[in-house]
Amino acid sequence: MDIRTHPREFRRAARAGLYDGPTAGYCNGYVQVNLMILPKEYAADFENFCALNPRACPLLAVSDVGSWSMPTLGEDIDVRTDVPRYTVYRNGKFSESRIDLIRHWRDDLVTFALGCSFSFEHLLLKHGLPVRHIELGGSAPVFVSNIDNVKSGPFGGKLAVSMRPFNVAQTIKAIEITSRFPQVHGAPVHFGNPHDIGIADITRPEFHGLSSVRTGEFPVFWACGLTPQVAVMAAEIPFAIGHAAGHMLITDLPIEDFLS
Amino acid sequence: MDIRTHPREFRRAARAGLYDGPTAGYCNGYVQVNLMILPKEYAADFENFCALNPRACPLLAVSDVGSWSMPTLGEDIDVRTDVPRYTVYRNGKFSESRIDLIRHWRDDLVTFALGCSFSFEHLLLKHGLPVRHIELGGSAPVFVSNIDNVKSGPFGGKLAVSMRPFNVAQTIKAIEITSRFPQVHGAPVHFGNPHDIGIADITRPEFHGLSSVRTGEFPVFWACGLTPQVAVMAAEIPFAIGHAAGHMLITDLPIEDFLS
Repeated sequence: MDIRTHPREFRRAARAGLYDGPTAGYCNGYVQVNLMILPKEYAADFENFCALNPRACPLLAVSDVGSWSMPTLGEDIDVRTDVPRYTVYRNGKFSESRIDLIRHWRDDLVTFALGCSFSFEHLLLKHGLPVRHIELGGSAPVFVSNIDNVKSGPFGGKLAVSMRPFNVAQTIKAIEITSRFPQVHGAPVHFGNPHDIGIADITRPEFHGLSSVRTGEFPVFWACGLTPQVAVMAAEIPFAIGHAAGHMLITDLPIEDFLS
Repeated sequence: MDIRTHPREFRRAARAGLYDGPTAGYCNGYVQVNLMILPKEYAADFENFCALNPRACPLLAVSDVGSWSMPTLGEDIDVRTDVPRYTVYRNGKFSESRIDLIRHWRDDLVTFALGCSFSFEHLLLKHGLPVRHIELGGSAPVFVSNIDNVKSGPFGGKLAVSMRPFNVAQTIKAIEITSRFPQVHGAPVHFGNPHDIGIADITRPEFHGLSSVRTGEFPVFWACGLTPQVAVMAAEIPFAIGHAAGHMLITDLPIEDFLS
């Protein structure tokens, strides 16, 4: 499997337990999505949270209650198995890492799919912009900023941001490209000094990922779809499941369809 | 006359000699253009120069030889009178500043109209971005960078750039907006350290304009339509006329039509 693998093949491999790694750099040209799976009593508040924080949470699809299919993202998708790795939260704390959710599934769960910045990375590469964490064979580093999300019910917390290092000319180009794709987080929220948005140490991402900023570059930050997981932890929701950081659901939607 | 004046009224005032000042902040929403007026023997090389340097020289219209009308830019335009102020060059040197070209007109002259960044300034203002030189009542400061233009015949020289100061969030927004308008210079070519592009003193623009960068801001540079005048000087063309820096021809074309 590589950048040319079709999402259907990729999902089958994840479903069979043959691949449980990060998805950055796979299935170029197809939209990757963040997942948040919640008991239905939280669904209305969470959907509103997405509407209030569209930069971090561009909502692309919501499942029926108890259903594990998401037909608008891909005909055969099974959200219980098709993501390489999941994170289960209990009472707002990390509970366990899973490669499937067969035993965790409940009839009251609702799945939310949110756009992910991995989707635009092949466009950056196509325009000659190097994506450092792909070069290094890993995921984008993700940090929790000091920027407050707009609250909805129990959901609030701080904005999570993904980081990619670029020089000045690359930053201009990256803004130019990503601003055309608001459904996968759009333009960056910040670049330059990490302290300006409350990041104390740029070498230590809160969520796993490879952070390496070289001379002549500065960090460029995009709103990140791990923001709901930060919100779930802050709210101490009894039960919630997210994709594991960097391990996305890859859909059948071509990224070009999302050009605004 | 103010930002709401229709371009037709503005041009009539310039034609009557009632206004000879800079055009920044006038006739918001209409495309302003740079002019380069050359003897026809230079026309082919210059048109090619524009094609090779599209960031600096987005060519919007070319007149017939000897004609002072530009019907695609505005029905009644007379390029000899409708610009508030002109600069005449002889042998590549500044010769004189004129408020009309009636006595300078020749039957062999060809007029080139190039997109101008003033056109997008009202869009920046509409999105809440302050434009410093408009606040200060003047023109954008213009510098000559150390970036080489691509050569065509006698035309070469260095890229001229206009500067607007912004903070980080404003810079992201400004790139996002201007990148959608490649026909009026598009995204910036640089931001941050002026020395990177050969500008020694950010407080002293080569072409008149107000340069004021405050704490927490940095200079953001766009390719500028004065670049042909730099090229004309470097090439020591015997006779050429440009608009005076900051004194543009205001057309009847709505800027929204240029959204790419």
